[in-house]
Amino acid sequence: MTPPVPSHAPSHAPASAAPLADPRAGAAVKAADRAHVFHSWSAQELIDPLAVAGAEGAYFWDYEGNRYLDFTSGLVFTNIGYQHPTVVAAIQEQAARLTTFAPAFALDVRSEAARLIAARTPGDLDKIFFTNGGADAVEHALRMARLHTGRPKVLSAYRSYHGGTTTAINVTGDPRRWASDSGTAGVVHFWTPFLYRSPFYASTEAEECARALEHLEATIAFEGPETVAAVILETVPGTAGIMMPPPGYLAGVREICDRHGIVFVLDEVMAGFGRTGEWFAADHFDVVPDLLTFAKGVNSGYVPLGGVAISAAIAETFATRPYPGGLTYSGHPLACAAAVATLRVMEDEKVVEHAAHIGATVLGPGLRDLAERHPSVGEVRGTGVFWALDLVRDRETREPLVPYNATGEANAPMAAFAAACKRNGLWPFVNMNRTHAVPACNVTEAEAKEGLAALDVALGVADEYTVQRRAAGGER
Amino acid sequence: MTPPVPSHAPSHAPASAAPLADPRAGAAVKAADRAHVFHSWSAQELIDPLAVAGAEGAYFWDYEGNRYLDFTSGLVFTNIGYQHPTVVAAIQEQAARLTTFAPAFALDVRSEAARLIAARTPGDLDKIFFTNGGADAVEHALRMARLHTGRPKVLSAYRSYHGGTTTAINVTGDPRRWASDSGTAGVVHFWTPFLYRSPFYASTEAEECARALEHLEATIAFEGPETVAAVILETVPGTAGIMMPPPGYLAGVREICDRHGIVFVLDEVMAGFGRTGEWFAADHFDVVPDLLTFAKGVNSGYVPLGGVAISAAIAETFATRPYPGGLTYSGHPLACAAAVATLRVMEDEKVVEHAAHIGATVLGPGLRDLAERHPSVGEVRGTGVFWALDLVRDRETREPLVPYNATGEANAPMAAFAAACKRNGLWPFVNMNRTHAVPACNVTEAEAKEGLAALDVALGVADEYTVQRRAAGGER
Ligand SMILES: Cc1ncc(COP(=O)(O)O)c(C=O)c1O
Ligand SMILES: Cc1ncc(COP(=O)(O)O)c(C=O)c1O
Repeated sequence: MTPPVPSHAPSHAPASAAPLADPRAGAAVKAADRAHVFHSWSAQELIDPLAVAGAEGAYFWDYEGNRYLDFTSGLVFTNIGYQHPTVVAAIQEQAARLTTFAPAFALDVRSEAARLIAARTPGDLDKIFFTNGGADAVEHALRMARLHTGRPKVLSAYRSYHGGTTTAINVTGDPRRWASDSGTAGVVHFWTPFLYRSPFYASTEAEECARALEHLEATIAFEGPETVAAVILETVPGTAGIMMPPPGYLAGVREICDRHGIVFVLDEVMAGFGRTGEWFAADHFDVVPDLLTFAKGVNSGYVPLGGVAISAAIAETFATRPYPGGLTYSGHPLACAAAVATLRVMEDEKVVEHAAHIGATVLGPGLRDLAERHPSVGEVRGTGVFWALDLVRDRETREPLVPYNATGEANAPMAAFAAACKRNGLWPFVNMNRTHAVPACNVTEAEAKEGLAALDVALGVADEYTVQRRAAGGER
Repeated sequence: MTPPVPSHAPSHAPASAAPLADPRAGAAVKAADRAHVFHSWSAQELIDPLAVAGAEGAYFWDYEGNRYLDFTSGLVFTNIGYQHPTVVAAIQEQAARLTTFAPAFALDVRSEAARLIAARTPGDLDKIFFTNGGADAVEHALRMARLHTGRPKVLSAYRSYHGGTTTAINVTGDPRRWASDSGTAGVVHFWTPFLYRSPFYASTEAEECARALEHLEATIAFEGPETVAAVILETVPGTAGIMMPPPGYLAGVREICDRHGIVFVLDEVMAGFGRTGEWFAADHFDVVPDLLTFAKGVNSGYVPLGGVAISAAIAETFATRPYPGGLTYSGHPLACAAAVATLRVMEDEKVVEHAAHIGATVLGPGLRDLAERHPSVGEVRGTGVFWALDLVRDRETREPLVPYNATGEANAPMAAFAAACKRNGLWPFVNMNRTHAVPACNVTEAEAKEGLAALDVALGVADEYTVQRRAAGGER
């Protein structure tokens, strides 16, 4: 019997045959890497980067003949999977036409990318300032906000990630900020809704929402509303744990910002372009920010690109007064061509609708089923292809499976979990006590189920570290 | 008679036939740009970006049938010219193989790009941290310096440009810094050698050099040497005016840094990869920095890429202690493939040697000849394909042709000069009272001469604004 064609099959399904192994080539790649490549966020001699030979669709493979289902989408950016042939062809064509050009000119592909993005962003966010990635998008958005308001401060969330450059890392709320936190003023962190670990001692979503808004309002009052240029939030915090904001929260923030003349910035670098099953996560909440930052999914990371979508009012500020910011590769033609093709593919192949569908019918139900069967799963959160499992040592107390920012021995349970995923052909996203299920938006039902099956086995390993299992004699 | 083949002819000489005009297409591109593209460093409604239809080698063309010799190399990045077929082919191949992948893995093309760059950087700068462009390279270099030394301050030059993100713009010394200069601490600007407009009242290169070193030494003494993490300099300041440092200056800075345990950062984002007729400008001066930032020429800007080359000692600091910085597209495969191909092309076609040759035999002599004949030229500075003409109202007093940071009417002489260049088929680099002759490194002798001829005409327009010409009855 021939299997039925799945309704949302990607047009570039990877060959199911295992790739050929070539361990010697892999060793050479690895040796050159260790000799010359300095890696992000790492102690250079304590890492052991896997040499990767290729990737296609939802998979990648190494030089040892191992193939992995990528439940990370790189760093949550390959929203259409690896090597989509239509986008690859568009990059090749643009390379042949005009691979690079300076930003101060009008180019067909730059204009078209801006038009297509502006057509998808909510509200009147119709002007696009292009950057190379997410961090510089945040840098420029906050500069625009400060100059538009003439105010110095920015408020951001303790649970957030906004990028690695000075201002982007300063507004970030995660331990990566700590080493870079001196030397800048004007950033104030506040607490955002997270009922499962409520900073507000709330017991319902509605209570969490109301208290979170009161907390923000009070923080603004004590900072001085007329000193606050911007509130920046990830619409749905990504790396920090995929906490869906409760109904009414973002609308409440919007209202507070409006009341005080504060610019509301939504960072959709990770949540945007289909990840949540909408074009933008803001679409779930019917909220329109003044500035929206994007990167990653805009062209699936095929060529570095990011940007800021700008409201009419803020664009007006810089209509006759120069915007004091820029970069050499703003609106890079090759990156813009990849964006144009990616947006067309997403439209044509209904990738956003597919992400919503797979979340509602496979990933959501499947992850909740795992939670029921595994004591290590404290909570399942998410939507679309944007899911987190909050792993715990104790379901009663919700004590995280590993402490905040744990390393070495203290992090052993998460390391064991990750190793088990990899042994079972799944490359997992792991951050602190969480694993995120963030495959490509066009992951098939079969692939999603394959991922869930591998998680099932790996969660069995995590379970061994729970109080419940240890009490039941599972202590090893 | 058939013309002789020029010895350094690019393999992709543009067709000499004028491109076909298509004004309607150009108008559409322009309209979409004005509707949706927010441009760098600009008042959005006061700009009128030229719609560009294509580019090849040292030329680009618009939709009106005009072809321009590009004496700007974009923003001084297309060191091998536009659309070099070998690099275009390499981008196309890599797109087909693996266009994107996350940074935490070892990849053949990433390793190879790092190896080839490390082989060219001076001294023991053998580890490469990849970024997307120049600004983030500077951000990360200065973070490394601060963490390596444990000290807060960075010293940088009043005449410099280092990029548009927070730390990069704060160390910049040009008016683009002003709007973003609040909120950061720890940046101290000092004066660097520039004999033609000496900040030290010197009258010889040797005196300028000695006084500049004394000034730096005194500034460090009064800032507190143990508070200074880094001195960052453009090896040859680019946008600020292409001031070749006098013999001994950079070696003197190196010695001062060594004596005080200060990290010496050379920014070669613009000066690197052949522009000065050496792989790096530092090679002219036999000086090895602790960190070297690059971007632009590393792959001629064909795909966004930048980075930091790191000394063994600084790499050692982050051997077992994590480096707290990173970005999603660090070591992007497509960008690295463009770098590998660009570096091979530069080697195979002797592009660096060619840049030195054309500077010594055509551009240098040609520009000095123009200076003799045009009273508006105060000084000719540079080397390789990296030249500045310092334009003056008065050769005696050296009063600049327009005031520092002039706009509108005050800038009319430079605007008239630029317009004259364009009318004569030359796209000029113009900054304040200067024009820079910064064509591709593989510009041919004929192209360079064509550029000089257009400059000759345009300088005639600039001359009209000089005191000398006005005194002679040239007042219009
Ligand atoms: C929400 C968010 N903002 C900004 C960034 C920074 O993007 P980049 O790494 O491209 O600088 C990230 C990266 O993960 C992100 O998730
Ligand atoms: C010397 C120097 N450093 C840094 C930069 C910033 O590079 P980017 O525009 O790629 O951020 C530039 C850009 O012109 C530069 O010339």
